[in-house]
Amino acid sequence: MLFSVRMDVDIPRDLDPEVRADTLAREKAYSQELQRSGKWPHIWRVVGAYSNISVFDVDSNEELHDLLWNLPLFPYMTIDVTPLAPHPSAI
Amino acid sequence: MLFSVRMDVDIPRDLDPEVRADTLAREKAYSQELQRSGKWPHIWRVVGAYSNISVFDVDSNEELHDLLWNLPLFPYMTIDVTPLAPHPSAI
Amino acid sequence: MLFSVRMDVDIPRDLDPEVRADTLAREKAYSQELQRSGKWPHIWRVVGAYSNISVFDVDSNEELHDLLWNLPLFPYMTIDVTPLAPHPSAI
Amino acid sequence: MLFSVRMDVDIPRDLDPEVRADTLAREKAYSQELQRSGKWPHIWRVVGAYSNISVFDVDSNEELHDLLWNLPLFPYMTIDVTPLAPHPSAI
Amino acid sequence: MLFSVRMDVDIPRDLDPEVRADTLAREKAYSQELQRSGKWPHIWRVVGAYSNISVFDVDSNEELHDLLWNLPLFPYMTIDVTPLAPHPSAI
Amino acid sequence: MLFSVRMDVDIPRDLDPEVRADTLAREKAYSQELQRSGKWPHIWRVVGAYSNISVFDVDSNEELHDLLWNLPLFPYMTIDVTPLAPHPSAI
Amino acid sequence: MLFSVRMDVDIPRDLDPEVRADTLAREKAYSQELQRSGKWPHIWRVVGAYSNISVFDVDSNEELHDLLWNLPLFPYMTIDVTPLAPHPSAI
Amino acid sequence: MLFSVRMDVDIPRDLDPEVRADTLAREKAYSQELQRSGKWPHIWRVVGAYSNISVFDVDSNEELHDLLWNLPLFPYMTIDVTPLAPHPSAI
Amino acid sequence: MLFSVRMDVDIPRDLDPEVRADTLAREKAYSQELQRSGKWPHIWRVVGAYSNISVFDVDSNEELHDLLWNLPLFPYMTIDVTPLAPHPSAI
Amino acid sequence: MLFSVRMDVDIPRDLDPEVRADTLAREKAYSQELQRSGKWPHIWRVVGAYSNISVFDVDSNEELHDLLWNLPLFPYMTIDVTPLAPHPSAI
Repeated sequence: MLFSVRMDVDIPRDLDPEVRADTLAREKAYSQELQRSGKWPHIWRVVGAYSNISVFDVDSNEELHDLLWNLPLFPYMTIDVTPLAPHPSAI
Repeated sequence: MLFSVRMDVDIPRDLDPEVRADTLAREKAYSQELQRSGKWPHIWRVVGAYSNISVFDVDSNEELHDLLWNLPLFPYMTIDVTPLAPHPSAI
Repeated sequence: MLFSVRMDVDIPRDLDPEVRADTLAREKAYSQELQRSGKWPHIWRVVGAYSNISVFDVDSNEELHDLLWNLPLFPYMTIDVTPLAPHPSAI
Repeated sequence: MLFSVRMDVDIPRDLDPEVRADTLAREKAYSQELQRSGKWPHIWRVVGAYSNISVFDVDSNEELHDLLWNLPLFPYMTIDVTPLAPHPSAI
Repeated sequence: MLFSVRMDVDIPRDLDPEVRADTLAREKAYSQELQRSGKWPHIWRVVGAYSNISVFDVDSNEELHDLLWNLPLFPYMTIDVTPLAPHPSAI
Repeated sequence: MLFSVRMDVDIPRDLDPEVRADTLAREKAYSQELQRSGKWPHIWRVVGAYSNISVFDVDSNEELHDLLWNLPLFPYMTIDVTPLAPHPSAI
Repeated sequence: MLFSVRMDVDIPRDLDPEVRADTLAREKAYSQELQRSGKWPHIWRVVGAYSNISVFDVDSNEELHDLLWNLPLFPYMTIDVTPLAPHPSAI
Repeated sequence: MLFSVRMDVDIPRDLDPEVRADTLAREKAYSQELQRSGKWPHIWRVVGAYSNISVFDVDSNEELHDLLWNLPLFPYMTIDVTPLAPHPSAI
Repeated sequence: MLFSVRMDVDIPRDLDPEVRADTLAREKAYSQELQRSGKWPHIWRVVGAYSNISVFDVDSNEELHDLLWNLPLFPYMTIDVTPLAPHPSAI
Repeated sequence: MLFSVRMDVDIPRDLDPEVRADTLAREKAYSQELQRSGKWPHIWRVVGAYSNISVFDVDSNEELHDLLWNLPLFPYMTIDVTPLAPHPSAI
């Protein structure tokens, strides 16, 4: 079951540099683990923005929420979720 | 070079039924031809809407514009284009 | 799997009165059949508007899209879909 | 008398951790007490957001305002209230 | 129980003049009957617009919806409803 | 001459508690004095918000601006002003 | 008492050409009469739009509403009204 | 003196085909004449839209308004105008 | 050449009181100097807001930008600029 | 391949003055280097704002993102990107 997800990141300027570096490292590891598992099949950078457009492939709304809620950058992101269905013209 | 594209379709209620059926058939054929060529790698339906979220893979802005402008449903669509770049966390 | 769905209805003023009456009758029957099946557990009227706020309980995004797409009033509605998950404070 | 209520939570990053933990514990207890009393029949998490969509069942606007105003998280929430009425197609 | 209600009127230009005149006459009579009954204690014109800002005093959401739904101009209006409560500084 | 006025209050979290208490006390006294004078005939709480919807009865735009500018909470409020005129259907 | 007023004009394409010409002529005459009387001291064209930004000088909200309501183009305009007061830095 | 101008075109579907073709031909000739004169130094197509982003170089606001007002497609366009000044980092 | 300009002021609460007083004094002097010179022919207060609506009379976009950029309150203002042209109905 | 880019700058008031001056100097040097290289052919100031409207000429979305991401002021800017194509009426 697919969802289109856009994440806009806004890390506070006064976040402790070590906390920041650690959070970004954990975010990357977490994202790559989900990509490898097939749960997060696509992630693209939005040109000119600290944002990504992603596609998630999950079994339920609840699973998607848990994956997003546990993103290390979750407290610093605005997330927009659009549920997707197969398109009748897709080959 | 990738672009995220959302298309919202609004076909006028008084469009001649044959014109409508013909336009939809041509739209489907055109979309599937582009999907087969690799130019339109993803197309998904937005749940609850006469809309799709797609990804295009083209060589230039101009090529993307030509592909979209020639959609048979182009006169009845609102199209939103977001340029994408590789994400540093993508595997 | 639950979704919050808001539907805003805008039936064209020049719709043939018989078509209109028939569409409304079919909409009501369709909605009540889904309510009885447990797929559409809640439907409320928005005060002062030709709109409803509903909750759907479905197995997938695709099932929800099919249910909404087949609403007899679908061509005359704007639909907004919000995926829901269990709340940790819910009893 | 039913109301649809959406609450978006934004707790300041610099809130004292003990105050934060205490506020969240009181919020949960308060919410569950109202759920048990029948005043707050539904609460769902919005996927990907620190937000909930709820339904309240109260005797008056004033009662609803008092319930919401006394939420421990009230100072950190944006609340959107939509009055509901029975839907003529509800079974 | 009070509600602030804003109504923006947009009567189609091609409405039959007799239907238009009749609808306006019925709207006025209906409004004045509700004003006399105490259900519609305030109605003001918004300067420069075919709109009013009103206050309704009703026993329930359902009653308010019925009053608004039965406005002869309801099909030609956009209505915005805000529930009100007593203000702690009101004398 | 009547105006509909909505005030949304947002007091900074780090305002000194004594300043805060004093400002709120002065706001209440100021509001009640204007209510007694007939300049501020209606004030209602917006359900679920730290906001009010009010009606002012003044002799001029300038008088209204002076009354609002001198609200003790003015620096912490967003104010929206709508000029009103008598409604032709008012009784 | 001054008001800033923006008017955006949208005349239906299918308006009878004679009605259109007559309406425009009456609008111009009406506007110039009010300008001569001092009630409409300023009118400017918005560059690139069928719109004007004006200033009205009237005795009351009610007078302003009557002037605007009787504009021959009123049914084809969206009007935005902003009440003005003297500025403390004005010379 | 430079202005950034965006034009969004929306030609009514029921416009007479000959009128449409003639209008488009006149628009093209008019635009190219202004480009040659140096008044309209840049015109680009917005990807995926019947829109352009242009730069005009004129002597005054009034001249710009006259140029835009006389566009053959003016009645079918929404135009957004942004005044520009030299940038201190421009070489 | 005329421009309509709206300025919304938002001075940070923690600005040093002396800096604040000095900035306001310089703003007033600067504004009055421009008013006397004929560059800033109108300035009005927006009722209920720390905002003004002004008209500037300048020789070029660049001159307007320089005047606005040098406002002592510029760093604390949001400024909206609308180019104006003579109105054909103006007397 | 051209893109229209608008950048709105908002430098935090409490940024260290030396860091600020250094960032601005590096921004200017970086911008001018790109202008000289032909990658950034146009940059204009938006009248009345700390903003620019620019045109970039790049080989790909990725190149544009890299150029923007490395702007010294990037952390303090909101950037809006519009892909452009040749206009059929351009000479």
